[in-house]
Amino acid sequence: MAKRIIGTTPKQDGYRMPAEYEPQEKIWMIWPERPDNWRDGGKPAQKAFAQVAQAINKFTEMSVLVSKDQYRNCRAQLPAKITVIEASNNDAWVRDCGPSFVVNDSGAIRACDWKFNAWGGLVDGLYFPWDQDDVIAQKICEIEQIDSYRTDDFVLEGGSFHVDGQGTVLTTEMCLLSEGRNPDLSKAEIETKLCDYLNCQKVLWLQDGIDPEETNGHVDDVACFVRPGEVACIYTEDQTSPFYEAAQDAYQRLSEMTDAKGRKLRVHKLCCPIENVTIRGDFAIDTVEGTLPREDGDVCIASYMNFLITNNGVIVPQYGDVNDALAIKQIQTMFPDKEIIGVDTVEVVYGGGNIHCITQQQPKR
Amino acid sequence: MAKRIIGTTPKQDGYRMPAEYEPQEKIWMIWPERPDNWRDGGKPAQKAFAQVAQAINKFTEMSVLVSKDQYRNCRAQLPAKITVIEASNNDAWVRDCGPSFVVNDSGAIRACDWKFNAWGGLVDGLYFPWDQDDVIAQKICEIEQIDSYRTDDFVLEGGSFHVDGQGTVLTTEMCLLSEGRNPDLSKAEIETKLCDYLNCQKVLWLQDGIDPEETNGHVDDVACFVRPGEVACIYTEDQTSPFYEAAQDAYQRLSEMTDAKGRKLRVHKLCCPIENVTIRGDFAIDTVEGTLPREDGDVCIASYMNFLITNNGVIVPQYGDVNDALAIKQIQTMFPDKEIIGVDTVEVVYGGGNIHCITQQQPKR
Repeated sequence: MAKRIIGTTPKQDGYRMPAEYEPQEKIWMIWPERPDNWRDGGKPAQKAFAQVAQAINKFTEMSVLVSKDQYRNCRAQLPAKITVIEASNNDAWVRDCGPSFVVNDSGAIRACDWKFNAWGGLVDGLYFPWDQDDVIAQKICEIEQIDSYRTDDFVLEGGSFHVDGQGTVLTTEMCLLSEGRNPDLSKAEIETKLCDYLNCQKVLWLQDGIDPEETNGHVDDVACFVRPGEVACIYTEDQTSPFYEAAQDAYQRLSEMTDAKGRKLRVHKLCCPIENVTIRGDFAIDTVEGTLPREDGDVCIASYMNFLITNNGVIVPQYGDVNDALAIKQIQTMFPDKEIIGVDTVEVVYGGGNIHCITQQQPKR
Repeated sequence: MAKRIIGTTPKQDGYRMPAEYEPQEKIWMIWPERPDNWRDGGKPAQKAFAQVAQAINKFTEMSVLVSKDQYRNCRAQLPAKITVIEASNNDAWVRDCGPSFVVNDSGAIRACDWKFNAWGGLVDGLYFPWDQDDVIAQKICEIEQIDSYRTDDFVLEGGSFHVDGQGTVLTTEMCLLSEGRNPDLSKAEIETKLCDYLNCQKVLWLQDGIDPEETNGHVDDVACFVRPGEVACIYTEDQTSPFYEAAQDAYQRLSEMTDAKGRKLRVHKLCCPIENVTIRGDFAIDTVEGTLPREDGDVCIASYMNFLITNNGVIVPQYGDVNDALAIKQIQTMFPDKEIIGVDTVEVVYGGGNIHCITQQQPKR
């Protein structure tokens, strides 16, 4: 039994969202398939997703959701120790349509089920419809028998914020103040929502993300908490990089910020790829009205920041770039006690996201 | 994680199928919808299924599987304390396509995932295709993280047999020796399969069931175990009843049988409805080639035997028949310590089955 909690918030009920570096019970993913987003019928992406799942599974249990049509194939592509469960979906971004779990001091777990509108709804959303994605969180909660808070009056995606588990939220104005999400809420009202549902006291605002045309600047391509009081931020001095301005601005802002506990943040630099990853004209991608087209030469949002912290491991995107090894080294320095595993996720980035975007952690109870 | 167990059987591994009257953890159902079987777009059947689910839920936890298309409606029709999980299906007969669970003496649980072919495959199956039904057992096992034995070389449905939990299987020749299931297996080979997978020592064979055109005579409309050494059997002296001959024959055979422990069976009589339940010509049922048509005047298989025993309750079909109350009274006598709840399931019987056919128990671990 998994019920909807009506009339209260996690903060009122004593639940908080733990940080990604706190102990996890399992990681959720959704199997990719839509041929208007993933090239060649999704086959290269499926291979990459399977590799990501297996890398995570070295540290943490994995459950993969999949549509009816791909159920048998997904089950065959993944090892038996990875759980596969049917769930219809519009695409594979469980970070954004999935639940954000919250826990209390007694070890109980609940979830926030954010209203989802495909990163901007009819204003600048990336596909239509998004009806199946918007019940993914509920379906996960029913499978796990976890009660949930549904925010019918608040659109949010899990990739648009990070928490430190100690009262601080990190997000971007570009995304949370975007016209396609909560145009009737003021910045102060949005802060209140974040603090009520994540049980935080302070919101740290960056200005821009690096993918204005896609998620409207999710923070998970730009920065994250490494541990309480410490963040990582993408950094480049290459003024020709498409991410230069946003990265510089984020780094400057973070360097001057204090968290909810009053700690001045320590900021770790994380390099960017030297070469752009771009969409190639010979990719076979279906043309569907209402879906953001992927066209020859489009620059993909290839950030090393889109890694997943999972128990004793960190799973890091690799692009076949000169800086791949440097990224791994920098992340190892941030997490000296964790094993850093790089996975070639060029095929994931072609679809518009990366490891963090396609995963969602469920904390230990 | 839920793996396939290869190369052994439950008997070899020390697992046995518990009887329905042993303690249960939950009951599974599948939400009905196909408009070529259920009249009026499945709406009357859905109402009846919801009532059955709620009656069961008085005693036992309930999980209901539902297709993507009916997910939101099913979730809205059922109370929050009943779990709803997406699973594609070809129809709603989870007794037959679902897993038969087995347990060991340490309280561990596994499952038999029988090959399913819609009650006769291309010989005399009831619809085509049955591909989604045939992965329902696997999907349930993944959701529950239960390892399973798949019988790719043995077609069986859960409604075609009963066990007493102490080494005895009860079934019918009409069904298990039918041409559409395992035509290449001898009766002795089928006995071996049943005994290996259910961990039994003796198979009790009735000759006929009462629905030769549908399930080819599932035993669960004719007889069941009430407790070790005792069975119930449908009984009528009305020679005009369509079930007269099969009922009389089953009663005579059971009265002369001994179980695996050598006990002579005590046979409880269970009445039949006085009036036939029939399909009416004004039912709005889609016409689909390959699906058994339901035509004006067809006699439905309305048996009181198709009840479900579930922890402290027994959920019994009611038809608005003169004998409804007698059936309840007789079943109360069989189960003096359980609460007997009647549910009007005329709409379920219109679709070709009843409470036992649409439920599957998962034993306590």
